[in-house]
Amino acid sequence: MAAASSDVPQDLHSEFLRNNADFAAKFEDGSLPLPPARQALVLACMDARLHPEKVLGIRIGACHCVRNAGGRASDDAIRSIAISQRLLGTKEVHIVHHTDCGMLTFTNDQIAAKIKTDLGVDVAGRDFLPFPDLDQSVRDDVAIVKASPLVAPGTVVHGYVYDVTTGKVRVVA
Amino acid sequence: MAAASSDVPQDLHSEFLRNNADFAAKFEDGSLPLPPARQALVLACMDARLHPEKVLGIRIGACHCVRNAGGRASDDAIRSIAISQRLLGTKEVHIVHHTDCGMLTFTNDQIAAKIKTDLGVDVAGRDFLPFPDLDQSVRDDVAIVKASPLVAPGTVVHGYVYDVTTGKVRVVA
Repeated sequence: MAAASSDVPQDLHSEFLRNNADFAAKFEDGSLPLPPARQALVLACMDARLHPEKVLGIRIGACHCVRNAGGRASDDAIRSIAISQRLLGTKEVHIVHHTDCGMLTFTNDQIAAKIKTDLGVDVAGRDFLPFPDLDQSVRDDVAIVKASPLVAPGTVVHGYVYDVTTGKVRVVA
Repeated sequence: MAAASSDVPQDLHSEFLRNNADFAAKFEDGSLPLPPARQALVLACMDARLHPEKVLGIRIGACHCVRNAGGRASDDAIRSIAISQRLLGTKEVHIVHHTDCGMLTFTNDQIAAKIKTDLGVDVAGRDFLPFPDLDQSVRDDVAIVKASPLVAPGTVVHGYVYDVTTGKVRVVA
């Protein structure tokens, strides 16, 4: 019954706390330093099917991980990269977008209309950073990071597309 | 030799591709739908020691995960939450900050000075969202999400602090 599962309180909060007690009971990484060991930052989509650490085999303490809707090189992602590079010594960026992304399914006008209808708020003109072409979105974000004045000149930036049906990443940039 | 490990090219790119081949060879989650199964979004810091999915026991496909420097409720995090709620059906937000966070170690003036020195760029006046009080930063971000006109009224928002030395989360809000 889909309706029931959606309407009944799920108490994910309590579940998270139980899961964390299990995690903490086996925890062995308590003395890792603040700077990422591999001096790298991963920028990925927030998609629930994409767990960047699993997909790329990233160990605890190895890499910063920034995520947002689309894995876009937004102004806020650049803020995070600048802090990561200037204060915590990272030197390269790996950008991961993915197939079947929600950002391929709407335009700014469409989400503005939905927000107006659902919440009564006018966000016309705001860019929610959707994209119509997956590979191009990766190339665009690689270019934005490389061109940002807040990113160290010469920073290596790699771009990937993750296939949510196969678990494989494909190099795009 | 720390200097050598920092200067020699590490080829993390090739390592990621090898790790991904191993991941894809055992991949079994290829038919999950786009909307997160648990109708929730986690907003967490980008810190390399914090893997939210491991810490909270989040399965592939279960929750959106947004991350940035500090796990802050930035304008871009609100963009992601709005897309998550309006288009993909999430209904609650779980915010995770952590002990020994880099955001506790600087002020906007200090990072602006460092960016000016290192990159020659003037970012005076820009807010990099550092914070002096960890618990208060969580409470602040919970309040920002709850008050945002782009977030559905009545959205449940939980706030946690993760202890990087013990692996335990503590409920703050």
